[in-house]
Amino acid sequence: MRLLSETSFRYPKALSFASGRPYEGFFEFADLHRYLDRFVDDSLARGLPEERVKKAVFQYGPTNGVIRDAVARMLNADEGIHVGPESILITHGCQEAMMIALRGLFASPDDVLLTVSPCYVGIAGAAKLLDIDIEPVPEGENGLEAATLAEVARRVKAAGRRPVACYVTADFSNPSGHSLSLETRRELLEVARDEDLLLLEDNPYGLFCREGEEIPTLKALDTEQRVIYLGSFAKTAFPGARVGYLVADQPVLGGTGDPRPFAEELAKVKSMFTVNTAGVSQALIGGLLAEAGHSLRKATRELADLYVGHLETTVRCLEEHFPQARFPEHGVRWNVPGGGFFLLLEVPFDAGYPALETSARDHGVVWAPMRMFYVGDGGANIIRLGFSSLTRDELEEGIRRLAGFIRASSPRDVDVANPPDRDVANLLD
Amino acid sequence: MRLLSETSFRYPKALSFASGRPYEGFFEFADLHRYLDRFVDDSLARGLPEERVKKAVFQYGPTNGVIRDAVARMLNADEGIHVGPESILITHGCQEAMMIALRGLFASPDDVLLTVSPCYVGIAGAAKLLDIDIEPVPEGENGLEAATLAEVARRVKAAGRRPVACYVTADFSNPSGHSLSLETRRELLEVARDEDLLLLEDNPYGLFCREGEEIPTLKALDTEQRVIYLGSFAKTAFPGARVGYLVADQPVLGGTGDPRPFAEELAKVKSMFTVNTAGVSQALIGGLLAEAGHSLRKATRELADLYVGHLETTVRCLEEHFPQARFPEHGVRWNVPGGGFFLLLEVPFDAGYPALETSARDHGVVWAPMRMFYVGDGGANIIRLGFSSLTRDELEEGIRRLAGFIRASSPRDVDVANPPDRDVANLLD
Repeated sequence: MRLLSETSFRYPKALSFASGRPYEGFFEFADLHRYLDRFVDDSLARGLPEERVKKAVFQYGPTNGVIRDAVARMLNADEGIHVGPESILITHGCQEAMMIALRGLFASPDDVLLTVSPCYVGIAGAAKLLDIDIEPVPEGENGLEAATLAEVARRVKAAGRRPVACYVTADFSNPSGHSLSLETRRELLEVARDEDLLLLEDNPYGLFCREGEEIPTLKALDTEQRVIYLGSFAKTAFPGARVGYLVADQPVLGGTGDPRPFAEELAKVKSMFTVNTAGVSQALIGGLLAEAGHSLRKATRELADLYVGHLETTVRCLEEHFPQARFPEHGVRWNVPGGGFFLLLEVPFDAGYPALETSARDHGVVWAPMRMFYVGDGGANIIRLGFSSLTRDELEEGIRRLAGFIRASSPRDVDVANPPDRDVANLLD
Repeated sequence: MRLLSETSFRYPKALSFASGRPYEGFFEFADLHRYLDRFVDDSLARGLPEERVKKAVFQYGPTNGVIRDAVARMLNADEGIHVGPESILITHGCQEAMMIALRGLFASPDDVLLTVSPCYVGIAGAAKLLDIDIEPVPEGENGLEAATLAEVARRVKAAGRRPVACYVTADFSNPSGHSLSLETRRELLEVARDEDLLLLEDNPYGLFCREGEEIPTLKALDTEQRVIYLGSFAKTAFPGARVGYLVADQPVLGGTGDPRPFAEELAKVKSMFTVNTAGVSQALIGGLLAEAGHSLRKATRELADLYVGHLETTVRCLEEHFPQARFPEHGVRWNVPGGGFFLLLEVPFDAGYPALETSARDHGVVWAPMRMFYVGDGGANIIRLGFSSLTRDELEEGIRRLAGFIRASSPRDVDVANPPDRDVANLLD
């Protein structure tokens, strides 16, 4: 990720498809003032004394957070996830939620983290910092597959080790853009039960689909508490609050012998990482949630349409520049996710850091080499295109530049620009 | 710490000397709005385009932070610490700074963290989460002693292990309230050089001394880059921002072979813990620093006087209730720190959790058992009194209740209330 940032830094005029940053066009300072006021006013209206509200915003606060009720209401309304506030832990962004879940779950050197591969770099990085071994579960054409998960879990067990949990993004995965079918989700939950695994479901992009195309999350389908859900407000609200959360309703025995949700045990880990999540940040997100009537699905509908529009623009531009891409033997093809922030583009050459440098320097366009997302080798000739943060005009210009880069970098005998004279269905849709 | 919080929670009417929370009387919501506006206005006035300022506040930001310049100016003005922004890393509170420093410094299972004992529980907790072994350096009558540090470092080396760093608070330590003399500080730096150690200097309370009684920090005296400085805005601004920082100017070889400050290497660790520190929190602290003319020493003078006043009130009340405390054989004595948030009170009985429960339930007063701060055994009959967050009236009433609890809990043959008939100098001053 640092090499990516540095490339963007050295070529500030390059258009960047490299990041998964949210669109910036809607950010207004006035909103922050209003969210804060809303949090304070609502708290006072609920009968809390002013000094209690000040304490929540300014002082050290409870480790598990002060907006758990609001998050529980949102999860109920938006995701059909029905948990009480005691099963929720508010974190300094979703990355901290991952760190805490890993530290809380992994105790022995024999414990192994499974993760879909390719995957978000943050999970691999967190595991590395905590000296946790990772075993990749290679994704199939449509993402993580239950049979592969079961196979890897059994292989790990056969080697005398314990597969504790598997990391997966069911909706619009980063980097691949895959969404798992309802059937696959059910199968994954069965494998989790049969192999005695937990699933760490990361869901930053789930709301950014076409209206009516929602599929229930793994957590919403989870009747046996096999899922720890990792949530983020970075894309649905804004990253600068650094507020995320986790849902861990698994009953565990506390010090007193009474069962309590795993989230409360994880709060002990959280207290040593960062004490508690910033009160001001929680107040801002609390105010935003109150304004949204505790449904971000409704409140972000306009934003979701914008991202779907970005996806459609990107795909349309790719089709215009590579009309022959239906013919995968010609070396340029891409997938068309149903939403989210990313799609993949396969090119007929090595798309690593040297190619990225050329692309940035000579063509003014930056992207992410897919190989950085693999646990082990893979993705050598694939580019991840993040279309979330650019404007429509920038997307059009960016794909024009990218097409120029791809034409210039492709081997001479691969004609990426002109369609061949036979017609084959697009194999990637 | 959780047992402490739970005791306070179960006895909400008890007056609490248990915490190191800052005084709440000065918190005003209007300040937050003003700090944010100030940050935005100052940034625009410096010629930054509005979209750049929005990015800093709302978007993902640089891992090392957006207010490093302001913190560098403050360190220069307040502490005589002269470092560039590239040696600073902004963190989600000082606890994260500790985690990051430990994770960045400790690599081999042979590496050992030395820490003054008793010490802040957060450093022991962070080491535990990261599976780092701790070796205590028992403090003497005035805090950490250079000879003891050298002795422990050599003992660790003799056992075939590597003492990497020693954690210490030079100013008004938590829990003991000790401040190290200038001479001790210089000696500690010599030991660090001779034994090839780093010192992790934690300084949350340094500004809260009597005017004119400042002693330079270890970092200000550090001519050989032996000190990593851990800073906090929790006490000088407010905890709800969760903004801390570390200063690590040690040159290390980066990927390109050029030396760069260790802080930049530590940013890689930070990115995996929490990506970056909340932009809104940094904007609030940035605005506050701008209002303060980048000198918190000046801006918090009134607050420092308040805390010194709290200390004096606490000591005066103790003297009133225990006039014989000059006679340590009579079992109640305390130290009188020069500032900070804490003092220690020795009592003639076991001051553990059962005693705390009695104190909270029957006498309406809560405090921290000193034994929780020891690495290993110690502090069985010592109470830590935190006097920062109570009002003067509450301090007076709290010490009255505490005196009642101590009288009721002391053995019958120890007369804690009446002075004996001989005069001995207070051995603890």
